[in-house]
Amino acid sequence: MLVNGEQQNTVAIMDRGFQYGDGLFETIEIHANQPIFLEQHLQRLNTDSQRLYLPQLDLDLLRVEIKKICQNVGNAVLKIIITRGSGGRGYRQPDNIQPTRILSLHPFPEYPQSYYIDGIVVRICKTRLGLNPILAGMKHLNRLEQVMARAEWNNAEIQEGIMLDFNGRVIEGTMTNLFYAKNDELFTASLNLCGIAGIIRGWVFEKLSVIEHDFFTEDLLNADEIFVCNSVIGIWAIRELENKRYAVGEITKKLQLALNSEKQKQVAYAV
Amino acid sequence: MLVNGEQQNTVAIMDRGFQYGDGLFETIEIHANQPIFLEQHLQRLNTDSQRLYLPQLDLDLLRVEIKKICQNVGNAVLKIIITRGSGGRGYRQPDNIQPTRILSLHPFPEYPQSYYIDGIVVRICKTRLGLNPILAGMKHLNRLEQVMARAEWNNAEIQEGIMLDFNGRVIEGTMTNLFYAKNDELFTASLNLCGIAGIIRGWVFEKLSVIEHDFFTEDLLNADEIFVCNSVIGIWAIRELENKRYAVGEITKKLQLALNSEKQKQVAYAV
Repeated sequence: MLVNGEQQNTVAIMDRGFQYGDGLFETIEIHANQPIFLEQHLQRLNTDSQRLYLPQLDLDLLRVEIKKICQNVGNAVLKIIITRGSGGRGYRQPDNIQPTRILSLHPFPEYPQSYYIDGIVVRICKTRLGLNPILAGMKHLNRLEQVMARAEWNNAEIQEGIMLDFNGRVIEGTMTNLFYAKNDELFTASLNLCGIAGIIRGWVFEKLSVIEHDFFTEDLLNADEIFVCNSVIGIWAIRELENKRYAVGEITKKLQLALNSEKQKQVAYAV
Repeated sequence: MLVNGEQQNTVAIMDRGFQYGDGLFETIEIHANQPIFLEQHLQRLNTDSQRLYLPQLDLDLLRVEIKKICQNVGNAVLKIIITRGSGGRGYRQPDNIQPTRILSLHPFPEYPQSYYIDGIVVRICKTRLGLNPILAGMKHLNRLEQVMARAEWNNAEIQEGIMLDFNGRVIEGTMTNLFYAKNDELFTASLNLCGIAGIIRGWVFEKLSVIEHDFFTEDLLNADEIFVCNSVIGIWAIRELENKRYAVGEITKKLQLALNSEKQKQVAYAV
């Protein structure tokens, strides 16, 4: 782990990331030593930093550190955390913000091939997402809603939980974004009021025309295909939701293939 | 600072308190070496731990450590943080949770006497509180809403910001609970959907009859008196809100006196 460029595995208790969750994170797939969608992750980090009134990030410094830490790791997960740094007790930001920058490497999780090929089983979570336009979309460090939702089940047969918002709209998975197709149209939730705007979600928007709209559990039960995605798992079809079964659909398969090529391309053309 | 009983001022980066804000805190006034409302704080910590599915707290151990750390500190602020401890990457709780327990002492803030006697100036924040019954009332570590609200102003003349919820109801201050009186009745927001159930708020409920209900900025502008409270500041009247001026009311003064006696009593009868 690198903390502000130094090898270290602890952080100050007075760091506002610890005191208040006052910061952001990114989770990046490293494939054959190469961070996938690196620029998209850095751009999101940059945009969200501005939304949190953090000082301008030094993206070049981050690129250098990421390159260094990823040498010879093969396949892994890189997590970047940026916090508002240390500050006195109290919510008020310090006058002079010295952000904390943490890079950590983690083993790439070995998911069964069946998750990709046959899809996964999901459930609907009771824990709802609160609505807050000021924080919506950001991958910030306030993640108790996801922790509480993930704590609802302990059955290893279930790979993901779907979260609704306070008003009952379907938003996303605990760790993924969610899309569904109906009559050859692709839909996902708008993230103006809650949810995390994932990098793979953004990539799907570039590949296909997607309709952002409000939808409910019933729409999912009537869908032709459903998939979830994130930067580590890629794309998984949903094969079962609340006892309803789905085939892995053509749109899902097409996107899985395209995502694989995109990854291979990024590895092949890496500088 | 004491981390699990050891003198230390850092915490593991993999601690879930840092990764996700997965934990709770308490802020306790130490007056003449004596933690004020200690049992109430410990009971809240205990109740909220259960709501977060944390393992049963060892309250006796906490009492011993608090007693030790508070010897000869005079007046200070004690902050207790309990997190779900270290765990792998991912929202899922580890099978074996080893909570992290942190006690830290901070200088008691020197507020001007005028805040107590004449009251303070407050503003209405643009940042709203999201609604989430699963997290409402708890003093958990996900505090970005308060950080964003407190970042809205930098004017030292303004001592607190009032936060509305997503639906426009008045809930509390960024760091305080809020009460108002109208025609000799005392009102405050219900905290079923958001907000923090403060210890002084609970004490006010014991002293006087309070009506919990939904109210709006307009109700505040028509109030006879308004005050805010927390465990460090005690009770401050509001003397100005959005250019409207208020006298320090009789209910506020009575509660301030009663709170002072309560504190003196706790110090005098300390074991």
